Amino acid sequence: MPELRKDPVVGRWVIISTERGRRPSDFVPEPVRPHLTTCVFCPGSEDKTPPEIVAGRLPGSGPDTPGWSYRVVPNRFPALRIEGELEASAEGLFDRMEGIGAHEVVIETPDHRASLATMPLEAAANVLLAYRERVVDLKKDGRFQYVLVFKNHGESAGASLEHPHSQLIATPIIPIMVTEELVGSAEYYGRKERCVWCDIIRQERRGRRRLIQDRDGFVVIAPFAPRFPFETWILPDQHRSAFEDSDVDDLRGAAGVLQDFLRRMNRVLNEPAFNFMLHTAPLHEPALDHFHWHLEVIPKLTRVAGFEWGSGFFINPVAPEDAALALRESAG
Amino acid sequence: MPELRKDPVVGRWVIISTERGRRPSDFVPEPVRPHLTTCVFCPGSEDKTPPEIVAGRLPGSGPDTPGWSYRVVPNRFPALRIEGELEASAEGLFDRMEGIGAHEVVIETPDHRASLATMPLEAAANVLLAYRERVVDLKKDGRFQYVLVFKNHGESAGASLEHPHSQLIATPIIPIMVTEELVGSAEYYGRKERCVWCDIIRQERRGRRRLIQDRDGFVVIAPFAPRFPFETWILPDQHRSAFEDSDVDDLRGAAGVLQDFLRRMNRVLNEPAFNFMLHTAPLHEPALDHFHWHLEVIPKLTRVAGFEWGSGFFINPVAPEDAALALRESAG
Repeated sequence: MPELRKDPVVGRWVIISTERGRRPSDFVPEPVRPHLTTCVFCPGSEDKTPPEIVAGRLPGSGPDTPGWSYRVVPNRFPALRIEGELEASAEGLFDRMEGIGAHEVVIETPDHRASLATMPLEAAANVLLAYRERVVDLKKDGRFQYVLVFKNHGESAGASLEHPHSQLIATPIIPIMVTEELVGSAEYYGRKERCVWCDIIRQERRGRRRLIQDRDGFVVIAPFAPRFPFETWILPDQHRSAFEDSDVDDLRGAAGVLQDFLRRMNRVLNEPAFNFMLHTAPLHEPALDHFHWHLEVIPKLTRVAGFEWGSGFFINPVAPEDAALALRESAG
Repeated sequence: MPELRKDPVVGRWVIISTERGRRPSDFVPEPVRPHLTTCVFCPGSEDKTPPEIVAGRLPGSGPDTPGWSYRVVPNRFPALRIEGELEASAEGLFDRMEGIGAHEVVIETPDHRASLATMPLEAAANVLLAYRERVVDLKKDGRFQYVLVFKNHGESAGASLEHPHSQLIATPIIPIMVTEELVGSAEYYGRKERCVWCDIIRQERRGRRRLIQDRDGFVVIAPFAPRFPFETWILPDQHRSAFEDSDVDDLRGAAGVLQDFLRRMNRVLNEPAFNFMLHTAPLHEPALDHFHWHLEVIPKLTRVAGFEWGSGFFINPVAPEDAALALRESAG
């Protein structure tokens, strides 16, 4: 059973998930994974994943058979387990919790060689709608406080399978980075009575040097203080704290803007490995005036080393103004 | 000139240091660096580094000539610049600061093939004494708030040169992770009137399951909530907040314990790439009852991916009790 443990100094929780450590690739110095002859996410291999939770399907096609456009399935090597009661306990001064949660995979397309950047807009919109559907459903489970939606693309960004997919993990605690964003933005709101991300959008639209795109209800910006070269944020220009409160038109807009950005990034950086992470409010918060959902994209271009791990202070060799210029000038 | 920029939400500073980097178009997936025919850190190449700041030298040998046992030199590609005034400014809602600081390299041995793990104890102690000497000296510069001492060993841990070396960066702000440790430990002290790390040492000495070594005034433990597999902390068993207040005997003890740990790690994990980071109090703090200096070592075994970058919540496939057992049972 996975276990959650809390660092007694900074309050950061970690997941100790030793069952995942059984995967053969875990401790050899990262080998190049050979292309599998059969991909477990391709049509025809539906029996190689746990039974699907939801899928976009041709009329008449049955669950766990071909005929789908996207599929959401439980992760076969989950970081957290769905079964069990939330039990907290102590070991002396330390706090722990059962590793209850959900870990799901969104298989974005049946086409192994397709990509989120280049698939038809409707297909990309359906991926975002699948995220929304899963968040709305997981929200009904009172054990969960947060759902993190993310994508690892490419081996150096942590992807262990090549077939286009993203993931979501529902957690019984609010992750520390989300808490830090909530606290920081509430503090800003307390001083100014304005959402800090709304203010950032206003300022970047005026200055334009870090603005990459502004269309269909979304702005794409290089943040002022990026941890990573070409780090990029995509934000709805209308204030909204919860991703799952977006409607179909919002998410179609988001999908188009995301695809446009990924194509620019692929052109400028030669199809890099990358991660994206959805930042949204905790599941059981009401609509918040100070929090503004957004997607953060980080191409995997540099290594994180001792200075960053010891300080939380990042050294970035590319100014965001230069990154934005290159991305803006590229065709989308 | 490098620049410091502050994230307006979470207050995290980053260093934008474009001189270190490449142009936006220059990002190619990290090439394997060929072994240089002449290493710039080997004896005979003293003119290929900036002039040395301090060195352990044979009597009669002049600066920047052979005859040294360790050398401290400015980094040729510094993340921060030593020259200039600290100037803070705003860009609308954003804060920035000139990138003033110091970035130095400690060349640990003249022997390219040696390692901190296996060099003679006195040589390893001299490396720690060199750290102390540089921290004490940099403390005199009122522009600096913190000195982070760290080591990147191996390419996947971010080392760009093979010759044994460590680094230190003096910064004009206190890094966010140091602030988080200060705040968390002050809060614990406020409730209990005890240092949290002293309490951890007491508890781990009693329980022993996460204790790896306990000798010469230092304990080596697998922390209860480690972010990474085989993450290890080395702490003086006597409370002290500032590394640079250690005396020669303390640092000789620390060197022996660090070498013992690195040899165990090398045996158990087959000489992994690794980072270590010194956690110590900010330069201008008096002795603090709630902070306790320590060294954190993280072997580079797993990739950090979207979940971690989006949440600050780490998934660790190895329980610290299992890591401690393996390290304890290995010969040191």
